[in-house]
Amino acid sequence: MPLLLPRARASQESVFARMSRLAAQYGAVNLGQGFPADAPPAFLLEAARRAVGTLDQYSPPAGLPTLRDAIGADLGVDGADVIVTCGATEALNVLALSLYGPGDEVLMLEPVFDVYIPQARLAGATPVTVPMTLDETHGWSLDLNALRAAVTPHTRALLLNSPYNPTGTVFSREELNAIVALARQHDLWIISDEVYDELYFGEKPIAVRELAPERTFTVGSAGKRLEATGWRVGWIACPPAGADPYGAGAGVAANVAGVRQQGSFCSPTPLQVAVAAALPVARAEGFYEGLRAEYRARQDLLAGGLSGLGATVFMPQGTYFLTAIYPRWRAEELVERGVAVIPGEAFYSQHPAPEGLLRVAFCKSRDEIGRALERLATTTMVAT
Amino acid sequence: MPLLLPRARASQESVFARMSRLAAQYGAVNLGQGFPADAPPAFLLEAARRAVGTLDQYSPPAGLPTLRDAIGADLGVDGADVIVTCGATEALNVLALSLYGPGDEVLMLEPVFDVYIPQARLAGATPVTVPMTLDETHGWSLDLNALRAAVTPHTRALLLNSPYNPTGTVFSREELNAIVALARQHDLWIISDEVYDELYFGEKPIAVRELAPERTFTVGSAGKRLEATGWRVGWIACPPAGADPYGAGAGVAANVAGVRQQGSFCSPTPLQVAVAAALPVARAEGFYEGLRAEYRARQDLLAGGLSGLGATVFMPQGTYFLTAIYPRWRAEELVERGVAVIPGEAFYSQHPAPEGLLRVAFCKSRDEIGRALERLATTTMVAT
Ligand SMILES: Cc1ncc(COP(=O)(O)O)c(C=O)c1O
Ligand SMILES: Cc1ncc(COP(=O)(O)O)c(C=O)c1O
Repeated sequence: MPLLLPRARASQESVFARMSRLAAQYGAVNLGQGFPADAPPAFLLEAARRAVGTLDQYSPPAGLPTLRDAIGADLGVDGADVIVTCGATEALNVLALSLYGPGDEVLMLEPVFDVYIPQARLAGATPVTVPMTLDETHGWSLDLNALRAAVTPHTRALLLNSPYNPTGTVFSREELNAIVALARQHDLWIISDEVYDELYFGEKPIAVRELAPERTFTVGSAGKRLEATGWRVGWIACPPAGADPYGAGAGVAANVAGVRQQGSFCSPTPLQVAVAAALPVARAEGFYEGLRAEYRARQDLLAGGLSGLGATVFMPQGTYFLTAIYPRWRAEELVERGVAVIPGEAFYSQHPAPEGLLRVAFCKSRDEIGRALERLATTTMVAT
Repeated sequence: MPLLLPRARASQESVFARMSRLAAQYGAVNLGQGFPADAPPAFLLEAARRAVGTLDQYSPPAGLPTLRDAIGADLGVDGADVIVTCGATEALNVLALSLYGPGDEVLMLEPVFDVYIPQARLAGATPVTVPMTLDETHGWSLDLNALRAAVTPHTRALLLNSPYNPTGTVFSREELNAIVALARQHDLWIISDEVYDELYFGEKPIAVRELAPERTFTVGSAGKRLEATGWRVGWIACPPAGADPYGAGAGVAANVAGVRQQGSFCSPTPLQVAVAAALPVARAEGFYEGLRAEYRARQDLLAGGLSGLGATVFMPQGTYFLTAIYPRWRAEELVERGVAVIPGEAFYSQHPAPEGLLRVAFCKSRDEIGRALERLATTTMVAT
């Protein structure tokens, strides 16, 4: 029998999928994978129930026009520059295939969201990571000099993520200005993964496209925004048609849509209809403000509990994760004792992970967080 | 500004998406893109309305276990060998990325379903096509000698499609046995695109995996089966774990799921729940028999009408398309005159298309088919 290609043999279950599987197996509280405990908002669910049985057939690969316009209106961009995808995961994969290939390097930070590296490899490119600095007192910070030093003549793109999973970092205007200057100097594309754009606890995150519209692709996720991670509706906002480097009327968006079409043809039509209806409602009804207030409370509950057990907690500025260091706890053991979290090593492949680093999700119910803390307390006592 | 990669710049709107767009623009009856006019069955819609609000978060990249088992039961394979995807389009793309890459050739027939060639190219491989023979009297036939002659030491896989879009061919046992012998002789993977497995008008199509279980990946589509093409639930049935060439417990399915995970993470969860519920009901209630009877009637209506207008019609043994030759009609003009069909050239890139070839869909309502025939009659008179 022939073999699968090496790139396929290297493809394995992600740590998130594995931890969720183990959590189910051991009956653990799942503070691992980033999906919310709460149901999506009623205005989204009702729109979907109405759409099912009405719009069930193929929609355009670029997305339903009503959804592209709704996303455009929400982000303040032209709907014609928006391409709908099957979740942000597909958005990132389509961009990898469109922007870099054999001989190219793509620069990203470590710790790194798990799909960035295998997607770059599937695209034929070489992922190059620059480590974030972690200081027990000051938390995570960007090492701009290290980022500058990592650029080579082969670098084609910078892959950013703010609010940043897993560190919770929201990059400042000064940091982003410096990154944009670097991208301009070396003529790099910027992929800005902003799936947590509405999940912040301090200042509102800056959309990178506002600083560098000509070279920035913004990646977003209705699943993250509207608490329906299983619906698989994400998007890419492309550089506007006016910034099109080769003068075609439809800009780069048409080519990106062409690549997306080979991947999955189109996104689930009835769920696109529902998201198109829900995006303006979420904005008008203050849904995101409510989400932030609720998650800030759960974050405090979790952070307080973990600190009380002796962990060093790094408070996030955004996302629904926090990172913590507690070298006594190993994620692989904790799941057997009833609490699933993500081990820090899962986010590192080119640099050593800080010892004892864990990522813990607080998009779970207060009850789940409370139970997890109780189980951790017992585990800690046993270990002491 | 940097450029997109050539592979992205070569990616364009598909002829199906374009014809549907033009049909909407000109108010044309759309006998082009293959989506049904009828709504999906009530048992599917009701299951989806129930699932929305219940299971809305991430599911495993390989698919919900209940759905994998339901597909397995339907096909007579083990659910552990089934990987769920965002439609058959993603299934085909995942297999392209898993099975062939730079330096490899993949053999397919022409006329060819549009995604096969760009997907092979995105995977880095070289698509090689062998033309079907078209005879005005006997219709389409497979040229086995030409297929044999096209195998080179670089050939890695054979991509088959039966029932065959656009020709409507259902390959006979003899033909498939010869193809399997060829694949065994040269140790090739077989990708068998069987999305129209329940849409046949003569003998039931043979599942290629039954002839060559060790090397066949079967591709299927809930969208085609259950008349919900916009739902994006498809599948791959992998060679069984026992046939695993490198002895890993989970077989090739785990690696294929790993590749799929990078593409879109998982399929829409509530729609997976609905399909899992609907597959056994469709079987038990004779849904497919009803579909076949209805489509046979519409096919007769369309074929009779086209023949009456002077076209040479090639009756399909399966799918919901027929091909016809009528050199006077050009698809680009017809859509402006109110009837969208797919031009034969859309299915050819390495060999010349038969002159005047059109693909016409009959998964449309009797009313639509009737109106299209009337408009064609007017057009024909004008042209005469
Ligand atoms: C940083 C980041 N990007 C992308 C994604 C994928 O989002 P989606 O579920 O829309 O594919 C995630 C999911 O956790 C994420 O954390
Ligand atoms: C032969 C063939 N394969 C695959 C597909 C794609 O199916 P899906 O809609 O499930 O992606 C089609 C759709 O027309 C097709 O005709």
